[in-house]
Amino acid sequence: MNSWDESLGSETDGENNSQEQDNRPETSHNKNCLLSHPWKPCRRPHAIVKEWLLRLRLCLGTVCGMEWYGYAILGISTAILSFLMDLSVTKLLTAHQWLYMKLEGNILLQFFCWTLYPACLCCFASSFSHNICPFSTGSGIPEVRTMMAGIEMPHYLSLTNMFTKFLGLICTLAAGSTAFLGKVGPFVHLSTMLGAYLSKLCTLIQANKMAKADDEMLVVAAAVGVASCFGAPISGVLFSVEVMSSHFALRHYCPCFFSAACGALTFRLLSVWSGDGETLQALFKTNFPTAVPFYPFEILLFAFLGLLCGAVSCCYLFCHRLILRFTKTNRVFIKMLTTEKGLYSGMVVFFLASLTFPYSAGQYMASKYTMKQLLTSLLDNGQWNSQFRNASLQVEPSLGWSSSGIPVYLSLAFFLLMKMWMLVLACTLPLPAGYFMPVFVYGAAIGRLLGEGVAYVSSTGGTSGQQWASINPGGYALAGAAAFSGAVTHTLSPVLLAVELTGQFSHAVPILLATLLANALARSGHRPSFYDAISISKRLPHLPSLRKANPRIPSTPLGQVLGVKSVQLQKAAGPVEVQHAVNSSTDTQIPVVESHESQVLLGFVLPPELLMFLRHCKAEGLEKHLDEVCCIHPTSVLLSPHNTVQEAVSILTLVGAQTLFVADRGRLLGLITWPEIKRILEDLADEI
Amino acid sequence: MNSWDESLGSETDGENNSQEQDNRPETSHNKNCLLSHPWKPCRRPHAIVKEWLLRLRLCLGTVCGMEWYGYAILGISTAILSFLMDLSVTKLLTAHQWLYMKLEGNILLQFFCWTLYPACLCCFASSFSHNICPFSTGSGIPEVRTMMAGIEMPHYLSLTNMFTKFLGLICTLAAGSTAFLGKVGPFVHLSTMLGAYLSKLCTLIQANKMAKADDEMLVVAAAVGVASCFGAPISGVLFSVEVMSSHFALRHYCPCFFSAACGALTFRLLSVWSGDGETLQALFKTNFPTAVPFYPFEILLFAFLGLLCGAVSCCYLFCHRLILRFTKTNRVFIKMLTTEKGLYSGMVVFFLASLTFPYSAGQYMASKYTMKQLLTSLLDNGQWNSQFRNASLQVEPSLGWSSSGIPVYLSLAFFLLMKMWMLVLACTLPLPAGYFMPVFVYGAAIGRLLGEGVAYVSSTGGTSGQQWASINPGGYALAGAAAFSGAVTHTLSPVLLAVELTGQFSHAVPILLATLLANALARSGHRPSFYDAISISKRLPHLPSLRKANPRIPSTPLGQVLGVKSVQLQKAAGPVEVQHAVNSSTDTQIPVVESHESQVLLGFVLPPELLMFLRHCKAEGLEKHLDEVCCIHPTSVLLSPHNTVQEAVSILTLVGAQTLFVADRGRLLGLITWPEIKRILEDLADEI
Repeated sequence: MNSWDESLGSETDGENNSQEQDNRPETSHNKNCLLSHPWKPCRRPHAIVKEWLLRLRLCLGTVCGMEWYGYAILGISTAILSFLMDLSVTKLLTAHQWLYMKLEGNILLQFFCWTLYPACLCCFASSFSHNICPFSTGSGIPEVRTMMAGIEMPHYLSLTNMFTKFLGLICTLAAGSTAFLGKVGPFVHLSTMLGAYLSKLCTLIQANKMAKADDEMLVVAAAVGVASCFGAPISGVLFSVEVMSSHFALRHYCPCFFSAACGALTFRLLSVWSGDGETLQALFKTNFPTAVPFYPFEILLFAFLGLLCGAVSCCYLFCHRLILRFTKTNRVFIKMLTTEKGLYSGMVVFFLASLTFPYSAGQYMASKYTMKQLLTSLLDNGQWNSQFRNASLQVEPSLGWSSSGIPVYLSLAFFLLMKMWMLVLACTLPLPAGYFMPVFVYGAAIGRLLGEGVAYVSSTGGTSGQQWASINPGGYALAGAAAFSGAVTHTLSPVLLAVELTGQFSHAVPILLATLLANALARSGHRPSFYDAISISKRLPHLPSLRKANPRIPSTPLGQVLGVKSVQLQKAAGPVEVQHAVNSSTDTQIPVVESHESQVLLGFVLPPELLMFLRHCKAEGLEKHLDEVCCIHPTSVLLSPHNTVQEAVSILTLVGAQTLFVADRGRLLGLITWPEIKRILEDLADEI
Repeated sequence: MNSWDESLGSETDGENNSQEQDNRPETSHNKNCLLSHPWKPCRRPHAIVKEWLLRLRLCLGTVCGMEWYGYAILGISTAILSFLMDLSVTKLLTAHQWLYMKLEGNILLQFFCWTLYPACLCCFASSFSHNICPFSTGSGIPEVRTMMAGIEMPHYLSLTNMFTKFLGLICTLAAGSTAFLGKVGPFVHLSTMLGAYLSKLCTLIQANKMAKADDEMLVVAAAVGVASCFGAPISGVLFSVEVMSSHFALRHYCPCFFSAACGALTFRLLSVWSGDGETLQALFKTNFPTAVPFYPFEILLFAFLGLLCGAVSCCYLFCHRLILRFTKTNRVFIKMLTTEKGLYSGMVVFFLASLTFPYSAGQYMASKYTMKQLLTSLLDNGQWNSQFRNASLQVEPSLGWSSSGIPVYLSLAFFLLMKMWMLVLACTLPLPAGYFMPVFVYGAAIGRLLGEGVAYVSSTGGTSGQQWASINPGGYALAGAAAFSGAVTHTLSPVLLAVELTGQFSHAVPILLATLLANALARSGHRPSFYDAISISKRLPHLPSLRKANPRIPSTPLGQVLGVKSVQLQKAAGPVEVQHAVNSSTDTQIPVVESHESQVLLGFVLPPELLMFLRHCKAEGLEKHLDEVCCIHPTSVLLSPHNTVQEAVSILTLVGAQTLFVADRGRLLGLITWPEIKRILEDLADEI
């Protein structure tokens, strides 16, 4: 129970401790420990290195707490990972394009090059991740949300998983716009794995109580994931705020910003050093006109765009839920997805690639563009429409959209129609992949279509002349991207992400408006978000998702779901009973009652104290009672069986305790711990 | 205890309710009620109007919950208030400038015009606010923070206070850069007052349980205050997140964004309609070069600027704490500030104005500029230095800074030196005033000085040539403004505010870096922030501030501070005891114990049930026991006397309960309610 005070005051404690250690002569204790192991090879150099490391630790500790170095390292290393991934993906995509160009003239070979390259990559990604670590498939955000809600899922944080996810994701991304999958989600997952590892390291170095550090690192890592992926620190922090299911603790706020800033700065500096630009710039930098970015009446159009995106997102989410249910119920599918993951991925991607082949339907949907090029072309600030009329002015961005000679409107509409079901199909692929970026691009296409439409209508109608002529469809594309991705994920951070990705602040207010309206439509009727649907389908013990599936779950009284009562001791317990309790209990706090009959809760004892009691009894050879030797700690917060599951989870989260006792009128009924909560939620999820 | 479930599910409930009402034939119940009052004048029209209002409510209710209309109205009306205030202040400032210009040639008259105009305004603001509502002085943010932490302070939310603060603030702002005070803080306070009023209105209209609505409206209002003041929605929300002392509830997130977007949109649209610009633009729109906003090596300079701002902020905060202590301990001061507030304000402002008189020291500190002009000039993107050398190119912004002919560096340095103590002195003025904007401008001046210095050194040294020549001191000014104001207030939202005020996103990452470093320096050693210092000085029951004054306060055990036990009933209580309890208790839950001897807590009863019990006993004329008639509700969360004050406050906040019982091993020790927490915190504050 004291752990939150500790975490609140951890900075002071840390400082005091390091100062105390400073005062000790040369940390003699540590040194002596090191030197006293007689069986170590190279004892002398080992000790010298360790001594220097200890000194370094003291030096670092005087500037700030060790956890801040952890945050900085987390940000920097995630950014390096992100940069390396971008680099490899670009190389792989260039190789594909080079091969495709070399085969110019032979359509059949070009077809096989176009389809087999991504199919093989996805097949490999799928089999690889299935064989090495099956937990690495999917986006990972539903699992991260569950872990941030307090449930432990150690499989999802292993280093093997990190390695698998990293390699698998490179393959998925190298499949390009054929697979049409993204990077954000898995990157958030990757950074949480890195965060969990660094957090363990920090605890090891700091060697004083850091009970909540693990949790803290996860929250920070969620922010860093987004920040390092796009060099966008502020939207990273907002994402982290939104992922927390019910309450964002303010003590995470500064660490989040610090780590996200480190990540974003490193990511952008690496881009500069690799020769991508002269200075730190936005990833998809746009050059919208700054004098009059939009006219006041366009606000209404942006609001309409928001509602449109909201409606389309409802349709998309509905299809996604349908296919999720289909994959869980159809027998052929289940068999395929459990045994032949690689084959399934390869087949689906082959099918998708044959559709996007530039000589088939692909020519109408700009399939030659990579994901980045798609987004860049959609965010272009000129009107494609006017470029179209004077062919001499036709500039690069719209080329891909009108290569077949059909108007860009039709091309965009076809893109939207096709990609809707192709994206839904791609979501079933069992490989590490993100689903945010495709949705973002899709939204940009919706916005672009509306913007181009408005520009076209106004140019033919041409009443208000000058004003309409300068409408910028790129602004609509940006607003559409934020609104649609916000509606699909039920978040508002895409607003900031859109701003940070393009460095374009002039449209912030209309983008915010569109995203709010889209969200309002998407959230109405308590529909589950994209990630909620995955959580429900995977039966993850995530309370807010379960609430979407069945609103009555959070208000289930604790009394109904409490498991069998675990080990308890009575006040007058002797060594035999204590020995039994020590052997059979895994809890960190063992409740002590007045007597087994009355069940009146007195407090709890800690297992180490029980071992001490046993040793004491053995040494003195006496039959002592528990309360004569051990100090019975008073319980802090007591729950009643009438409290709901939601309340229990919240109090456990917020109080930072590991164990809460449930008592009715002073009588012990049971214990609430995180494993117990996990069991309860999993039981509830099964009942849906 | 159920209130949080209700608030979580409030949307559904609201919808269900409205649908139920829809199904009822024409809300006949309500109509009948209205028509059955025989003594009302104009019964018929009254009823018709009310019927239409009821229908309107139903119509509105089908779209979304009534509270969302409240949020929209809050945003819009705060923006209108803000716009009206800006308009009046501009008129008053123009009048002053006109008069000053008319008196050209007569220095003595000009001196009196320059000094007496602001002195009279401030004298009036001070006396007015003192006489109408003494709670309206100061910025109001410390009080808003306290209220958002759960403590009720009804005096600070009255409509009289709103009126007084609004008028007083106009006078203060009209005193211009002489008083050097701002608008943000009082505006946040104004919007919370408006929010509290609207929240009451919403509850009245909705007529169903809205237990947490009041609290929700306050959180939203804090975001709206900042958003409407500057048309900056995102920083408004981040400010609201930061003001919450320990946990930000995610259910406030969307309302905050929605209301802030409404406010910002209205504020900017009003500016457009009043002819301020062609479209919605940032308040202090800048035109920094977008191609290469800054070079990678400048990151180090921004980091240095952050540390510099942090150091200066420590100095400023130290002086501020000194003068706060002085005003609380010096007898002359205390007497002056309690009896002659108007005179004191007038005298101080007269003194400040005589210093800033353009023919005295004012010529060296650009005193002819208003606050807005000061900020605009500091954020200018040209190098004043280079403008200086070719006089023909000398453009407007630097004119005010070099009017006396001395170099701008000296002018800026003199400005910084003088404004430091002048600002500290101005903080003692007992009138409605904000302290954020002056700090923001001061930070901009620090940044500008560094930027100009770097530009000058590089132009004389001139090694790397081209790169150094294109350094933009405006970027440094922006970073300095965010870093210094962030350090003084211990917040990070100024980063976003700086971006939103200027619409300049290219510098976001270096600004964030500078602000983080400045914050790190300012927060080290657990120094209190600007608002913390005011809270401590005013002895507000705000726990995080008290922690800064004495870190041991939050970990005081409840047992030490628990007051006398309030009314309790025993299970077998008869009508006499119950009658006594009803008469003497003001609590919403009255605890029931097994017997007065054993003190074993059984649960609680509600006062209405006790009244029913009494009526029952009277009707039947029997001596019944309490537990025979009333249902004893089980308690939910139980605290122990070993819980700390911090834990009690957090659980009370987060659980949303109004009463928590404190029990030791099943025995009742006392009650924790918000008034009780207020008493405890005030006692602890007095002990410091």
